[in-house]
Amino acid sequence: MNDLSSLRCIVLGAGGFVGTNLCRSLVGQVDTLRAFGRRQSFPEALSHKDIDWIPGDFSDSSALASAVSGCDTVYHLITSTTPASSNVDKLYDLQANVASTLHLLDICKDQNVRRVIFVSSGGTVYGIPNQIPTPENSPLNPICAYGISKLAIEKYLALYEHLYGLEYRILRVSNPFGPFQTAIRSQGVISAFIHKVLNNRPIEVWGDGSIVRDYIYIDDVVDALKSASLHNGSERIFNIGSGSGKSLTEIIDAISHLRSIDTPTRYLDARASDVPTSILDISLAKEALSWQPKSNFLDGLNKTVAWQEHDFNV
Amino acid sequence: MNDLSSLRCIVLGAGGFVGTNLCRSLVGQVDTLRAFGRRQSFPEALSHKDIDWIPGDFSDSSALASAVSGCDTVYHLITSTTPASSNVDKLYDLQANVASTLHLLDICKDQNVRRVIFVSSGGTVYGIPNQIPTPENSPLNPICAYGISKLAIEKYLALYEHLYGLEYRILRVSNPFGPFQTAIRSQGVISAFIHKVLNNRPIEVWGDGSIVRDYIYIDDVVDALKSASLHNGSERIFNIGSGSGKSLTEIIDAISHLRSIDTPTRYLDARASDVPTSILDISLAKEALSWQPKSNFLDGLNKTVAWQEHDFNV
Repeated sequence: MNDLSSLRCIVLGAGGFVGTNLCRSLVGQVDTLRAFGRRQSFPEALSHKDIDWIPGDFSDSSALASAVSGCDTVYHLITSTTPASSNVDKLYDLQANVASTLHLLDICKDQNVRRVIFVSSGGTVYGIPNQIPTPENSPLNPICAYGISKLAIEKYLALYEHLYGLEYRILRVSNPFGPFQTAIRSQGVISAFIHKVLNNRPIEVWGDGSIVRDYIYIDDVVDALKSASLHNGSERIFNIGSGSGKSLTEIIDAISHLRSIDTPTRYLDARASDVPTSILDISLAKEALSWQPKSNFLDGLNKTVAWQEHDFNV
Repeated sequence: MNDLSSLRCIVLGAGGFVGTNLCRSLVGQVDTLRAFGRRQSFPEALSHKDIDWIPGDFSDSSALASAVSGCDTVYHLITSTTPASSNVDKLYDLQANVASTLHLLDICKDQNVRRVIFVSSGGTVYGIPNQIPTPENSPLNPICAYGISKLAIEKYLALYEHLYGLEYRILRVSNPFGPFQTAIRSQGVISAFIHKVLNNRPIEVWGDGSIVRDYIYIDDVVDALKSASLHNGSERIFNIGSGSGKSLTEIIDAISHLRSIDTPTRYLDARASDVPTSILDISLAKEALSWQPKSNFLDGLNKTVAWQEHDFNV
């Protein structure tokens, strides 16, 4: 299989940030495109006639089974928690993410799905990294329950391939940003910061602004997801990021500079779930997926600001 | 803290094989000894007046909270599944082991428990090892849900120490054998094989008998558990095994030879949950815990056979 056109796809979590962008990119390129999720953050964005929107809750196994039926490729983008919220209720995090994914994998096995592509978390599975940029074979010591859940799901995916031949690919995505990322629900600092700047409200930062993350423009993540659906090599887990890092302070400065708006910043207590620095080594994905991030950071940031200015107001 | 005498201990899973042996060894050496479990396989074995038996189910949080109250040291030996059964119902395995342990860790945090000592699985967390003997820092790719659950619990233990200062030590124990291991409930091949030999019934082997495991006599496991309660170094995870391997065929031959009984063997299909070879590298435990296995394999086997002959008939 070397092109997307024969794929019968379902995107789980299609109403969210990554899912919306993925669906908009896949539509017209694949044989079938189902979009499954609890709600659409931007219904207009998924209104294309070839996107089959199926409303449903990830924890509802029968809805899920019906949605997956007939598909060969499953993009699993659902996350029911955030790193910070996961530490507050670890049991909910386990149930909503891991237990529900076990139901999904049984459904995929029973329905002879060919491949599951899972978005894991490049920013949390490694914990406090002992090597930066961090390659895939680094120690895995999450400091939030969210990272532990993602890891457990990774291991179950490997188990289902071992036991039943259900193929999988895992993308450990860093911090994606871009259009359709909302400023609410703690989805991403860039969209939240842009929202504050555009609305002349003070930015609130956890910690002193020195936290460094690997930000990647959403189009590059979508490219990686598409490559992962066609990949034929023996590798299973790929870091997907820009390969370089920026501090929160740099992000704030860049946004302010783009629109010449000087925004006051308030510094709050650091959070226990935040690692100081996260930058991914993306060599493996470049080589094995023939993928690389194409977007320049400032171009991506500019498009994201423009999208919030013109297309969307929270 | 360098001796056991001040410890206020609770053994979770005290009615089982490892728990029974641990309680019998700890009694008289520690300040307080509570024994928690659903049932006692051998009530006589735990009848000492200084063993406070508390019947309860691990999934019953309030019973657990009441049992843990006032203890500083928690030995977590509970496993509700086996490697083979875990693959049949992965969701049950997750709920019974991981979710229940999250409840336990919240209880330990709330009650200011000093340390949790957890028995993990040296035979399953590594999956099919790429290095034999296998050291602790090897890749972790379980081929059974049981191993994934153990791994997830290991990660949660690290998280609770990071977030709340709850200390932990993890023993990745290989295949323990000895008195109080029952021949039923798939607890261990050695006790099962001994039972067949002593009762002149054919032995059933999954696969062709070539599967190699690292068998360790229970007294050596108990020693390691006691060392782990006092350990002050920075290490957290220790392989506990004999450091060498024996095939199923060798085990059968050794038992038959001990009692000069020739036992017919039936070979069944291999199980997907079984790795071909598992032998642990125990260098770290030797160095950091000042521990080493003291029992000679044949001596341990002889004691186990004698125990089944004289003290116990299933």
